[in-house]
Amino acid sequence: MRDFLPERMILRNWVAHQLRTTFESFGFEPLDTPAVEYADTLKGKYGEEADKLIYSFQDRGGREVGLRYDLTVPFARVVATNPELPRPFKRYQLAPVWRAERPQKGRYREFWQCDVDIAGTTSPLADAECLMVVAAAFERLAFKRYTIKINDRRLLTALAASLGVHGEAALGLFRSLDKLDKIGEAGVRDELATRGIAVPIADDLFHFMALGGDLGRMESYFAVRGTNDAAAAGIEALRTIDEALQASGVGRDFYAFDPSMVRGLDYYTGPISETSVEEPRIGSLAGGGRYDTLIGMLSGRDVPATGVALGFERILDVIEELGLQPGGLTRTVSEVLVTIFSQETLGESLALARDFRAVGVRAELALTGDRLPNQLRYASRRGIAVAAIVGPDERAASEVVLRDMASGEQTRLPRALAADELVRRRPGQT
Amino acid sequence: MRDFLPERMILRNWVAHQLRTTFESFGFEPLDTPAVEYADTLKGKYGEEADKLIYSFQDRGGREVGLRYDLTVPFARVVATNPELPRPFKRYQLAPVWRAERPQKGRYREFWQCDVDIAGTTSPLADAECLMVVAAAFERLAFKRYTIKINDRRLLTALAASLGVHGEAALGLFRSLDKLDKIGEAGVRDELATRGIAVPIADDLFHFMALGGDLGRMESYFAVRGTNDAAAAGIEALRTIDEALQASGVGRDFYAFDPSMVRGLDYYTGPISETSVEEPRIGSLAGGGRYDTLIGMLSGRDVPATGVALGFERILDVIEELGLQPGGLTRTVSEVLVTIFSQETLGESLALARDFRAVGVRAELALTGDRLPNQLRYASRRGIAVAAIVGPDERAASEVVLRDMASGEQTRLPRALAADELVRRRPGQT
Repeated sequence: MRDFLPERMILRNWVAHQLRTTFESFGFEPLDTPAVEYADTLKGKYGEEADKLIYSFQDRGGREVGLRYDLTVPFARVVATNPELPRPFKRYQLAPVWRAERPQKGRYREFWQCDVDIAGTTSPLADAECLMVVAAAFERLAFKRYTIKINDRRLLTALAASLGVHGEAALGLFRSLDKLDKIGEAGVRDELATRGIAVPIADDLFHFMALGGDLGRMESYFAVRGTNDAAAAGIEALRTIDEALQASGVGRDFYAFDPSMVRGLDYYTGPISETSVEEPRIGSLAGGGRYDTLIGMLSGRDVPATGVALGFERILDVIEELGLQPGGLTRTVSEVLVTIFSQETLGESLALARDFRAVGVRAELALTGDRLPNQLRYASRRGIAVAAIVGPDERAASEVVLRDMASGEQTRLPRALAADELVRRRPGQT
Repeated sequence: MRDFLPERMILRNWVAHQLRTTFESFGFEPLDTPAVEYADTLKGKYGEEADKLIYSFQDRGGREVGLRYDLTVPFARVVATNPELPRPFKRYQLAPVWRAERPQKGRYREFWQCDVDIAGTTSPLADAECLMVVAAAFERLAFKRYTIKINDRRLLTALAASLGVHGEAALGLFRSLDKLDKIGEAGVRDELATRGIAVPIADDLFHFMALGGDLGRMESYFAVRGTNDAAAAGIEALRTIDEALQASGVGRDFYAFDPSMVRGLDYYTGPISETSVEEPRIGSLAGGGRYDTLIGMLSGRDVPATGVALGFERILDVIEELGLQPGGLTRTVSEVLVTIFSQETLGESLALARDFRAVGVRAELALTGDRLPNQLRYASRRGIAVAAIVGPDERAASEVVLRDMASGEQTRLPRALAADELVRRRPGQT
C-alpha cells in the first residue's frame, strides 16, 4: 500500500485527466461502483489462483464480502442488475482495485485500473473501438511507439480443433503457447512434448504461427482443413477491426495480428488484445477482449460485452521513465505565495489572495507568521514560482511586488494588474 | 453500498471538480492514501462507539487491517511518518471512506468525504483559511445561504472550569450542551439535572450562552471570573478568525460564533466549526477544527494541525434538492452520435468521428449496426443532443447532416464546418 504525496499526485491527476478526456471523447460514460462487493460476485470469475488473492472479510451482517479485484466483474454485475440501461452501454471507470499479493517490486496490493467496456452488442466495431481508445489515449500521452497485438479466442479454439487437440489438452497447449515471447519456440516445443503433444502437431502449430497473423493466409489455412464456423467468425471479426482501425487513423505500425497471443483470463470469448511499448520493457500496458458469457454468469441471461483495461500504474512508470511529463506540470498547485509583510498589512494580503483566486489564480497565503525571508524560503522549497509582497509602501501606492523565485527578480506593478501578470507568466500547459 | 450510474456520476464529477478547483485555489495539494490502513492506526482515535464501525479484517500476512473511517487519521499518519514534508503542509483529499453502519436512509457504508487540512502551524489564520475554503466552495456551488458556526474547544474547557465542573462531569456537560439545537434549553437543563449538575450552575451556563457568541462579552465574562489562559487563547483565536474572514470577503451573514457548539470527535483542541444550510434540513454539510495532539498520538511528536471535512454526499443532496445543477450539465457525456448509414459508408463515419474528437467534440459512434431510425432512437434515449448522418449523397458532396434530436430539425452543411457547428451549439457550461 502506498501514499501518493502531492508531487506524484499532480502527475497522477494529469494522467487520469488525459485518460478520462480520451474515454469521454468516444462517448464512454463515467460509472462508479463500491469497493466492497459480495464475495459471491467476485469468486469463480478469475480462475482459482486469482480467487486466493481476493481480500475478503465478513460484513457487519455476517455476509462474506470482498474488495474488488478488477473493474470488469463489477461492470458485469451492474449490467446484469440494471436491465433498463441503454444498449449498447458504454462506460469507463478509473478506480483502485485490491489484490492480496505478497509485496514485490512492481506489484502493489492497492493499485488503480482504468477500463472502458461496451455491453449489449456483438459487433466487432465495438471491439475495434476499444482499441481506438487505447491508441487515442497513448497518442494523447505522447507515446511515440506502441504495439497493439490482436488475436481472437475463436481462432485459438479452431486451431486446437484443427490440430486434433481438445478439452484440457487444448488449454494446456494455449498455456504453453502464451509463453512464446518468454521461452521461444524451442521452449514451447519442450513444454508441448511434456504435455504429450506429438511433434507433428507442434510442427503444424508453428506452421500456423509462421503465417504471421496474415488474415488471408489464416483463412486459407482453415479452408484447406475444412470449414470451421468459429474460425470464420474470428477472421471476419479481425477483418472488421482491421478496416475500422485504419479508417480511424490508427496505422498498421501500431497494431499487429498475433496468433500466439492468448491472454490469461478464463472469460474471453472473441477478439482479444494486448498493448505494449518496446521501451521500457515493462510488460503489457493495456489488455482486454470480448467476454460474451461473463454477464450471464451473474444474471443467467447472456449479454455480449467487450472491453479493455489500461494499466494506470504502468502507464505512469512509462511516462516517468521516458520523461513524457508535460512541460507545464509543476510540483505544486500553488502559482503564487501571497506573503504577509506584517500584522498591519495582513488584511491587504488576504484581500490580494482573494482577488487572485477570483480570476482563477491558485494563490497560497503564507500561514507561518514568520519573517518575510522565511516565507520566501518556504516558497522556494515548495517550488512556488512567484511570491507576492505587499508592504506598507506598496499598500499606500496600491501596488504589489512580484518576486520570481527562480531568478530573484522583483517587479513592482499596480495591484490591479498583478493577477493578469501572473496569468501571463503561467507555464504553457498542454 | 451504491453504484453510481452515468447520469449521477456526471453530477458527482462536476461537484468534485468544483471542490478540487476551490481547494487548489488556496494552494491545498492533492494527496492520496490507501483505503486499507493498519487497524492500530485507525483504532482509539474516534471514540469507542466509532471504533466498532471500522471495517477490519486480517491481511494476508495475518496483520489486523481496516478500511479507512475518515480522511483525517490517514492525513495525520502521513504527516507523522513523513517528517521531511514542508511545514505548513496543506493537502486535500476527496475519497471514499467506509463505516459498518446498519443501512438506513441517508447513511451509507461507503461514501465520499473531502477534507482540507493544514499541519505544522498553530496560527489561527490556518483555522480561518479552512473556513474560507468552505465559504469559497459553497459560493462556487451557488449556495445562497449557509451558516458557519464557530467555537473554540478551549472556551468550552474554560467555561466548565469557571462553572466548577471538571473531568468526566465536564464531558457530560458538553454532551448535553451539544444537543441544544435538538432538545432546546429545557431539554439540556433536564439532562444536566440527571447528571447531577446543580441548577445555579446550569443558570450560569445559559447566562454564558445568552452572550450570543459576542467575543467582547465572552472576554468580559471570563475576566470577571479571574484570568484563564485557555479562555484568552480561545477568544484571541476567534478574533483572528473574525478579522481574517472579513478581510477575505466572507461577510458576517455567513458565520457566527456559537458557544454551544461542541462537535463530537475526541481529538479537537482549538477552534471548531460546523456549517449548515437552512433549507433543506439535512444536518451539517461541513465540520472540523484544530487537533494539535492527534499527530503526536501516531508519532510521539506533536504537530499542530487543523482542517475541515466537507460532506460530499450531503452537498450533492442539497444541490439536487435546490436544483443547483448548472444548466450546461447534460445526462450523457456524448455530444454527438455519429450514425452509420450503411456498411459502405462506415469508413466515412469513422473518419468523421475521428475528426470531431480531434477538435475536442465528444463523438460517439453508433455501434448497434442497426437501421438508421433505431440509431436515432438510441440517441434520443441516451439524451445525445445531435446526430450526425453521412449517407452516400453527403459523402459524394463532402457534406454532413446534423440532426437536432430535440426538435428533429436537420441541417446539411459542408463536412469541414460540422465540428465548429457542434461546438457552437454546445450548452453554455459554468
